[in-house]
Amino acid sequence: MQPTSLTIEKMIEILSSLPTIGKKSAQRLTFFLLKQPEEFIQKFADTLYDLKKKIKLCSICYNFTEQDPCPICSNSRRLRDLICVVEQPDDVPIIEKTNEYKGVYHILHGTIDHFEGNSINNLKIPELVERAKSAKEIIFALNPSVEGEVTIHYIVNLLRNYPIKLTRIARGLPIGSEIQFVDDATLLNAIENRTEIK
Amino acid sequence: MQPTSLTIEKMIEILSSLPTIGKKSAQRLTFFLLKQPEEFIQKFADTLYDLKKKIKLCSICYNFTEQDPCPICSNSRRLRDLICVVEQPDDVPIIEKTNEYKGVYHILHGTIDHFEGNSINNLKIPELVERAKSAKEIIFALNPSVEGEVTIHYIVNLLRNYPIKLTRIARGLPIGSEIQFVDDATLLNAIENRTEIK
Repeated sequence: MQPTSLTIEKMIEILSSLPTIGKKSAQRLTFFLLKQPEEFIQKFADTLYDLKKKIKLCSICYNFTEQDPCPICSNSRRLRDLICVVEQPDDVPIIEKTNEYKGVYHILHGTIDHFEGNSINNLKIPELVERAKSAKEIIFALNPSVEGEVTIHYIVNLLRNYPIKLTRIARGLPIGSEIQFVDDATLLNAIENRTEIK
Repeated sequence: MQPTSLTIEKMIEILSSLPTIGKKSAQRLTFFLLKQPEEFIQKFADTLYDLKKKIKLCSICYNFTEQDPCPICSNSRRLRDLICVVEQPDDVPIIEKTNEYKGVYHILHGTIDHFEGNSINNLKIPELVERAKSAKEIIFALNPSVEGEVTIHYIVNLLRNYPIKLTRIARGLPIGSEIQFVDDATLLNAIENRTEIK
């Protein structure tokens, strides 16, 4: 095969290094981009630059933001003593979309991974412990995984003498799922965490 | 839901305007990009600019290229009197990948679409007719669709008095499929079993 252009090859290589984009999709996207007007490409490239230039971490919750503190932390109608702890910035819009949560967030930027010894130093755990001093409740909304469990356990231990409420989001059957197709661990958890009906 | 950053919203909007990328994937990709080092973003944005700045259409075959004529047209080992006609530049690497085709290409940049009256003026058909004067054989490798058929019929009619061989790749391709997604063996077979149109 004769490569027709190094720039095209480079674009395909970059796109296929992104998650969920394979070689074939990357090729398709590249040819799509080649057919777009100058303005679209300009806007795309400018926005990429802006991502790195304008977006910082909020100094309170460590979410990605353009202004510091971020819009959520600086919103006076949000309950600042109710903190929802999540693994990644991506988790925030998912919870925001429910339009029900009125507290603020704390982004850990990962979980404790036993196979990567130094990862704990990159997590915003000391910052959470500091914020916990002025909190009433901390809700853990980490992914239901071994790493998530270890991380919750570790933080709860650090906060055990704080006069605050520590909660976690419920683990159970997703709405619309069927008992037939739910895995053992989920089902076991759902039975253990059964709630009273009356 | 509280948007945390206009730049992030803009990036999500741009990415979800690309083919095969939905809103959720776009969000995921944006957060992935936010976590990448400066150099990656720089390379991505630079390559995007290069796509528009460096890539032109080859003045012979109308493929995307950085040099004119393109590497295929300027390769002295390719048979210049054997021209394979394709719809889009994306189709060229697919045929090149078979490593069997030794001729050159002609990219039409679309097909005749009866529902879009003016589309025929955007196709590189006069340019193909001109090239046909010095060709021995023209192989049509258009997608097996109504538009593909109409386009072949239209061009064959223009070339009916030329002393050249006009062939098409075998219609072993399932109707409704796209050249982009056909496996190499099928494609190779289709090229080998090309049939004469006149």
